[in-house]
Order: sequence, then C-alpha cells, then structure tokens
Amino acid sequence: MLSQVVELIENKNSFAITTHVRPDGDGVGSSLGLCWLLKSLGKEAEVIVRDEIPPSYRQLPGADEIRKVSSIDREYDAVFVIECSNIDRPGIEKLEEQFVVNIDHHATCENFGTINWIDATASAVGEMIYNLCKAIGGRVSKEIAECVYMALVTDTGSFHFPNTTERTLKVASELVKVGVQPSRISEAVYNSYSWSRVALLQRVLATARRDTTGRIALMRQTLEMVEETGAVDGDNNGFVNMPLVAKEIVAAVYMREVQPGTYRVSLRSKGPINVARVAESFGGGGHKNAAGFRISGDWDEVESEIENRLKKAIEIAAESDPALEIESEYTLA
Amino acid sequence: MLSQVVELIENKNSFAITTHVRPDGDGVGSSLGLCWLLKSLGKEAEVIVRDEIPPSYRQLPGADEIRKVSSIDREYDAVFVIECSNIDRPGIEKLEEQFVVNIDHHATCENFGTINWIDATASAVGEMIYNLCKAIGGRVSKEIAECVYMALVTDTGSFHFPNTTERTLKVASELVKVGVQPSRISEAVYNSYSWSRVALLQRVLATARRDTTGRIALMRQTLEMVEETGAVDGDNNGFVNMPLVAKEIVAAVYMREVQPGTYRVSLRSKGPINVARVAESFGGGGHKNAAGFRISGDWDEVESEIENRLKKAIEIAAESDPALEIESEYTLA
Repeated sequence: MLSQVVELIENKNSFAITTHVRPDGDGVGSSLGLCWLLKSLGKEAEVIVRDEIPPSYRQLPGADEIRKVSSIDREYDAVFVIECSNIDRPGIEKLEEQFVVNIDHHATCENFGTINWIDATASAVGEMIYNLCKAIGGRVSKEIAECVYMALVTDTGSFHFPNTTERTLKVASELVKVGVQPSRISEAVYNSYSWSRVALLQRVLATARRDTTGRIALMRQTLEMVEETGAVDGDNNGFVNMPLVAKEIVAAVYMREVQPGTYRVSLRSKGPINVARVAESFGGGGHKNAAGFRISGDWDEVESEIENRLKKAIEIAAESDPALEIESEYTLA
Repeated sequence: MLSQVVELIENKNSFAITTHVRPDGDGVGSSLGLCWLLKSLGKEAEVIVRDEIPPSYRQLPGADEIRKVSSIDREYDAVFVIECSNIDRPGIEKLEEQFVVNIDHHATCENFGTINWIDATASAVGEMIYNLCKAIGGRVSKEIAECVYMALVTDTGSFHFPNTTERTLKVASELVKVGVQPSRISEAVYNSYSWSRVALLQRVLATARRDTTGRIALMRQTLEMVEETGAVDGDNNGFVNMPLVAKEIVAAVYMREVQPGTYRVSLRSKGPINVARVAESFGGGGHKNAAGFRISGDWDEVESEIENRLKKAIEIAAESDPALEIESEYTLA
C-alpha cells in the first residue's frame, strides 16, 4: 500500500533500491527516480543492481553512481525492490533477510515484501514513483522527472502499447513541464547503439521470410552473424517486431542461436492470437502477444514445429475473428 | 487569428477543408477533426484533397467520405487550408478565388488566406484544432479525438521530436480520456504496410555502408528493388533514419533512383549538423536535420560528391561541438 510506503520513508533513514537482472528502462528509471526522491527528503539512498546498466540508461542522472552488487554487503533500514515478480528476480543474495518493500505494476506479482505496493493500473512503476512523490509532498525535480519519463517511455513503447492511459500522458506532460526534453530521452533510448546493430539487422533481415500461409514471418540470428558484426546484448532489440509492420503478418518468430543447436525463440502476435500458449507448449511462457522459450535440435525441424503450432494458434483465434482465417489459395509474391 | 476563425464559423454555413498534396497524418487528421467539429455545430462541411489518402489514415472516422478533387467544383462560404506554406500546396485549382482560411503551425507560412491563423508553438495543426474546439465551446467527440490524436502522433514522431511540449502531451491525455486508444492509432500508423515494405527494407539495408570517416551512412534504393518487391509509395518511410540508431553515425544519405540516372536524395543529421545547407548547395532544401534534393548523373560520382559536402558540414558543426570531430585514424570494422 502507498500509505505504508510513505510512512516507512518518513520514519526510516537508510535505503537501498534494486531491480531485476538485465534491467530495463522502467527498472533503472524508477530506481533512480526513487533514489533522487529519497535524497531530496534528506535520506541516505543508493541503487544497487546485479547486472550492467544498458547504454541507453547510462545517461540518466545518477546512473554513474549505481553500484553493481551480487550480495547485500551493508546495513539498510529497508530495501526497495522495483518491478520484480518475486524475491529472486534481482539476483542479489541475502535480499530475503532485509526489510523488503516490493513495488510493482504487474497484477501477477507475488507479495514477497514486508510491504507490498502493487498497482496494476500503472503503465510503469515510474508512474507509481511519480504518485509517491506527490503523496509524500516531494518536489518533482528535473532529475526525478527525467528518470520517471524514461520509465514511462520504455514501458509503454513510446506511448504505443495498450497500457498507455490518460494518466500516463498526463504525468508525462507534467514531467515535461519541470524540464524533461522528450527528444533527448528518445535519443538515449533509440540512438545509443553502435553500427553493430545496423550490421546485425542487415544479416538477420536477409533471412526474413513468410511461411506458406503468408501470415507468419520467420527470422534467424546465427552465432556467425554475431561474430561477424561484433553485436552485443540488446543490439537486436525490437527486430522481432519488424515484420509485423505488414498488415497480413499476424505472428512473428525470431530464432536466436545461443550455442550450436540451441536457440532462444521469441514469438510475437497481433490481436487475439495467443503466443503465450504456444511458448508454454515448448516449456516457455510470456504474455498473449509476446512470449518466448529455449529449445535444442535441428534448426529446420524445430522451426517447422513452431510454424505448425503457430498455425493452430491462428486457427483458434480465427474462430472468434474471421479476418484471421488462413486462405488456402494464398500465393507468395 | 483564432478569434476570427471562431467568428467565421459562427456566422457561415458551408465549408470545405483541404490540405497539401501527398497528405500526411497531421493534414488528414486535422482536416477530418475540423470537419467533425463543424458538423457537430450543425454546419455543412466536407474534406477535399487532390491526392490519395495513404492507408495509415484511411481508418480514421470520416476518411471514407474524403472527396478527391483537382479543382473547386461547388460553392462554399469558406475553404480551410490546413498545414500549407502557400496557396499552391493543396494542388487544387480555383482555390485562390475562395474565401480562404489558412491554418498552419509553421512560422514560415505565408499569409495567403483571407484569415490567417498561424501558431508556431503548436506541435501539429491537430493541437490547434483541439484549441479551436475548446474556444468555440464544442464537445470533443470520440471522432474528433481520434483524428486529432493521429495528427499529434504523426507530427511529433510519436512524441519523440523536439516539438513535443507539455501542452502536446496534455492534449493527448485529454483525447485518451474521451475514448482514444493509443495502441489502435499506433497500429494504424506503423502496421498498415504490406510485406513489400519488409522485402524492400531487406534489399535497401543490404546496401547500407559507412563512409571512410565512419560518421556518414549511405543507402541506395534502385528501380530494380521496387520492381522486385512491388513496393508502393511510402513503403520506405523512415528507412533513412535507421542507421542513425548508431551513436557514431551523425549523418545519413538515402538515394532513391526515380528513373535511370536520376535520384531523389534524402539527408538526415544529428544535432548541429546542417543538412539543409548541403541540400541547398544541390538546389534542394529542408530543415537543419532533414532535407532533400533531386539530382542526375553517375551514381558513384554523385554519391561521392554528396559525401564530400557532408564531411564539410560535419567539420563546420565540429567547430562548435568538438564531439563531432572526425578522427582521421578511424578504422572501419
């Protein structure tokens, strides 16, 4: 509950803030935003994260001071855990011994904290940090604003995803009022890559093809491509979505070779097509329109099995939405 | 002036609304938004445009009723001209004989109307239509809201461009409040293409390369690629920006063969690098970070000359921003 969080902050003095492994924009932005808020209230606070901060978020104010830790190594009155479904997600040892404040915007979040503040109506935890700032009577400084804006932009896909609400845009407007330059945040998010991303995309896109129904797009990323281009983690962000710009494409498969014969598969879909089910049938999971799993085997065989299960998922969805029906006479250009 | 526009609407009855040739999201969205507003006030109104409406905007309410005209063919009390720098931009004959109301958000707009309402602080004309709706005491219906939201999203690059203000986001928030689903608008804007866009991107991206300094990216689109893929106008939207995701790339060149030996060249740049100057030196024009021109000649020779002039533009910019300095020892990967 928000009121418990406010009370805790008012009564305690030293805090750590952490988020999940492989931190994203909401994780980093919300953690830093909360850190700036706590400091502005005269508290001791620091952000601790297990993994490297991706380049896109390193330009945020305070990002330089984030400490990389794998185990709690000092005393805190409380540790805030941002955007984690369970206590293991931060990948930090001894966390379970702490006074944990769990802040998340996923309805499925476990109540693993001593205090749990879950708000599934928030587009991002960033929106909740803004609410906390208002509730506690803090001033939304430019630093807080930039961090929270980053959280909103990344978790709503630049205000594109269905989680974008009237409130999200209103908060964004208020953050711009206190000094955020939207174009600078976008530049950091989208243009912080190296040429390796372009080089990787060249190669991956060259493999893009449609299945025989013309409704499913498939792409491959080989180990060789990564080696040739010097691509790093994150260079392929969003590649899986690219074929979905075509209105006839309703599902996309991105197969990334992680070691010879083993693949990390990402699935995307539109509307009622449930790729979480497909991923689950392969031992993975995710959301209705975005899911994934890991699999080993012969590339062509594995791909063909994924294709078959996706076609079934499209057929099931077509029962409720005839526009999705696969035309058997469809011919590829 | 806004007050003159309000007075005109209150006192007259039949209106046409038009926008520039090759209409964009702000042109179509604002025209339709204004049309819905006028109708809700009991007026006669229709949108007339010379060119085809791109697929992305055909899903807007009222888009079906837009009439394609090349000459004014009936009587109106007044014709609203949306987002045009001069009276010729709509490409409609006899427009100059009408009572013209010029509505634009570019400071450079000529005062070609009988009434001229120019607001350079607005991110899009859509924002001005919202203001007009409020000023005239109209209700922001769901139809008006969807059309205006489309205008905002497209003219701000999904709230990425520097023209995105506190006001833009506040208006967007209020439009969501009356029923706009941001994800549906985004889907219409970004996912209304055909596979031909993916196929064209495959080929264009395969040509992407960096110049010897590693700061300029160059891409080519041949007539053959268009033929092979069946690509249509607009399929290459945004391709020129793709290499700019790499932070070391500060300028991008997109050369599109329009007939054998003739090219339409698009230039993009970051920060202080002025590509409008470069385009002007080739007889074209544009904005500081986005410009273009048409040129004929041998492909390699033309490209090499563009490269040289761009390098000079980068050197000029580097005088005020040392981060742009070209390192002579730069080696390509």
